[in-house]
Amino acid sequence: MSTEQSSGRGSEWQAAVAAQDAALERLAEAAARIDVDEAPRLPGGFAAGALAAGIKPSGRPDLSVVLVTTPEPASAAGTFTSNRVQAAPVRLSRAHLAATGGAPADGLPPHGTARAVVVTAGSANAATGPDGDADQLAIAGFLASAAGCAAEQTLHASTGLIGTRLPVERVAAGIASLVPAGLSATDTALAEVGRAMMTTDTRLKTASAVVALPAPGGTRRVRVSGVVKGVGMIHPGMATMIALVLTDATVAPGTLAALLRPAVALTFDQLSVDGDMSTNDTVLALASGAAGADPVEPGTPAAAELGAAIAAVCRSLARQQAADGEGATCRITCRVSGAVDLADARAVSRAVVRSSLVKAAVHGRDPNWGRIAAAAGSARRPDGSPVSVDPESLRITLAGTPVFAGAPLAFDAPSVSAAMAAPDVVVEVDLGMGRATGEAWGCDLTEAYVRENAEYAT
Amino acid sequence: MSTEQSSGRGSEWQAAVAAQDAALERLAEAAARIDVDEAPRLPGGFAAGALAAGIKPSGRPDLSVVLVTTPEPASAAGTFTSNRVQAAPVRLSRAHLAATGGAPADGLPPHGTARAVVVTAGSANAATGPDGDADQLAIAGFLASAAGCAAEQTLHASTGLIGTRLPVERVAAGIASLVPAGLSATDTALAEVGRAMMTTDTRLKTASAVVALPAPGGTRRVRVSGVVKGVGMIHPGMATMIALVLTDATVAPGTLAALLRPAVALTFDQLSVDGDMSTNDTVLALASGAAGADPVEPGTPAAAELGAAIAAVCRSLARQQAADGEGATCRITCRVSGAVDLADARAVSRAVVRSSLVKAAVHGRDPNWGRIAAAAGSARRPDGSPVSVDPESLRITLAGTPVFAGAPLAFDAPSVSAAMAAPDVVVEVDLGMGRATGEAWGCDLTEAYVRENAEYAT
Repeated sequence: MSTEQSSGRGSEWQAAVAAQDAALERLAEAAARIDVDEAPRLPGGFAAGALAAGIKPSGRPDLSVVLVTTPEPASAAGTFTSNRVQAAPVRLSRAHLAATGGAPADGLPPHGTARAVVVTAGSANAATGPDGDADQLAIAGFLASAAGCAAEQTLHASTGLIGTRLPVERVAAGIASLVPAGLSATDTALAEVGRAMMTTDTRLKTASAVVALPAPGGTRRVRVSGVVKGVGMIHPGMATMIALVLTDATVAPGTLAALLRPAVALTFDQLSVDGDMSTNDTVLALASGAAGADPVEPGTPAAAELGAAIAAVCRSLARQQAADGEGATCRITCRVSGAVDLADARAVSRAVVRSSLVKAAVHGRDPNWGRIAAAAGSARRPDGSPVSVDPESLRITLAGTPVFAGAPLAFDAPSVSAAMAAPDVVVEVDLGMGRATGEAWGCDLTEAYVRENAEYAT
Repeated sequence: MSTEQSSGRGSEWQAAVAAQDAALERLAEAAARIDVDEAPRLPGGFAAGALAAGIKPSGRPDLSVVLVTTPEPASAAGTFTSNRVQAAPVRLSRAHLAATGGAPADGLPPHGTARAVVVTAGSANAATGPDGDADQLAIAGFLASAAGCAAEQTLHASTGLIGTRLPVERVAAGIASLVPAGLSATDTALAEVGRAMMTTDTRLKTASAVVALPAPGGTRRVRVSGVVKGVGMIHPGMATMIALVLTDATVAPGTLAALLRPAVALTFDQLSVDGDMSTNDTVLALASGAAGADPVEPGTPAAAELGAAIAAVCRSLARQQAADGEGATCRITCRVSGAVDLADARAVSRAVVRSSLVKAAVHGRDPNWGRIAAAAGSARRPDGSPVSVDPESLRITLAGTPVFAGAPLAFDAPSVSAAMAAPDVVVEVDLGMGRATGEAWGCDLTEAYVRENAEYAT
């Protein structure tokens, strides 16, 4: 049962990890300085639209398309679920990015080019066997002919019940009436895309930021916008979530992929609604170049600025997802400081927001900090090794009140409980072991979550 | 996001893993052949008792003691939480086993000798700082003087709220009236110990088995009995659970530790109620030698038989815990076959029983097998690497009905739903990749779990 483990590695490896940690921390700081607007804003070079194709029994909108309207296809990059059971749309999007972009170098996320993205909601097209792959390929063909591009330039995402087939004929009819006549280059159209992606979501989740990037004769305003769905089966590594990040920046696919990866690591990967990992998780980033700014080259200030905007938009989306978690009445934000390294900080913050007992205590506005201490101590790094947590140096602050500092502190429970009746309950954990920080988001665990998920399919 | 990892290791290491896997599978088979009785049966060489010392506000029994009545102290071994925040009783028990047994060799669990075990319920004495350690040490002193032994021959376990101090004077008064006058060598006394350990448990959980071991002039009946508490904050690695395993076999501490470790791995480590890991988890095994059988030597048939009985008793206790999970209406048993190795089989079975969405679906008697596929595919081995799961070779059987075999199968949902209205919902997952098997236990997720845990402290 004792799990004393040493992670004995070479100093070169440690230096590389430290450099990566420092880069991620700089990105988190830069993202925090970006102003984010939660309204839907469609960047230049895209048209969008949605309709009810008849996938959802409710008859609500369930099919959406984003079309790239610039002469050249957009640069595209994607991160996908690490679940070993991957849905047909995930497999097809990966294959298409590989076809248009070649084999990703140096561990970058898949990237290539794309002309159109289709999202279906109501059926996940996961665990549907070879028939499900054939369905998705047929949809790619319909979209490609409507959009006037090669099938490989279509990207796909899907959400809904696992194990059910997509009604391909209805999807085909929907695509035919939507592309291109039903699409428009308006903010409203982006909102429609967001609404058509929703399943158990209760509200539209969008975010947008503007950065000034170098351009011929000065600078240009470049917009980064995101739309996301997904409030259940959400857990680091990723979630039943679909996020589209659209920008009118000019950036090569590999550079876009290199900016997307750390943004996702800092944001969607630090989000847990219920600890479950979906078969369908997809984050797609598309860059149209329509803003007319200079191409963003790796390692430049412009790349740092665009990367910060992407991370800031993703962070806003992830926090909106946590607040809209299935059955949730509040968001839980865990901020960890004093960790020996970033991996510890990230692991401890995730462990706190995913603990069923912490989530239930927050639901009851119960200042039961012992569960926070237990969750922190149980955290494991990605390689399974334990984090460095010592109760003697541990400090916990709950909704603004210090409650533990190596030993229990006296505090007024009713007033902390009252402070916990907020839409965002903040848990601060100072490990007192080092200087690394991390943040994660979750939500409370409620009877409504159980009811919702006990009655989903039947 | 992509987590393709190779676990490239030498063939020597792989052979060692394969040998360990084979030994665990043999143990599982041997344990399955042992008849287990769920009634409380106190083995020879022990006296036990409990009373209400005033730790629990409810006034229910909350202090229990098991005393070794043989001339020599018992052999003792313990496995403890791997949480980095360890309660004072866990730290003291580890220290006492180290003091009486020396440093454990070859990764064996801590082991030594013991004269008495004290269990308190109602306050965990965890995250209580140096004061909490001093409290537990004081209790060791009271118990030692009442039992007439060295303080190092006392072992300690505690359960209840984290962060609250034990009322030491009440515990001292309780020990004084209990030891030895209030103890008796009866089955009823063991039941009293079990009841005094309970917190949110709704029923007594005991198990017992008898094996015939070689003895001078023939064989002797040797009894192995266990008692356990703990139905929340339960998760592999371990749980807010306290188990005492008592036997009248004659076995050296190191041999007992070597038998206990794989038994715990196969049983308590495969149990998940809510995915939370406690600060207080403790499994203590004590062997009095009172049956008069020959000393059990490592590697002998007698060791295999005693080990099987210990594993069978632990398995019964773990399954009783799952059925009594906080708020649960049923147990979930996941049996995995066709895994490439034991680690995969164990990881997949654990992932299924811990999935909030699977648990909620079972609560709704909803044959939503897609969540089972998603949970299987999301499983991670202890080193964080993904398991080998391929949807094309995956087969899922739910409550006796095949529902997926590389693609969805047609089945009658109402009749599967009706079959799921059982006290034990069995999920069978055949990975179709190899020959290893594994089993794990959990329970459904209910509104009652949420209510219970939103209102625990306040």
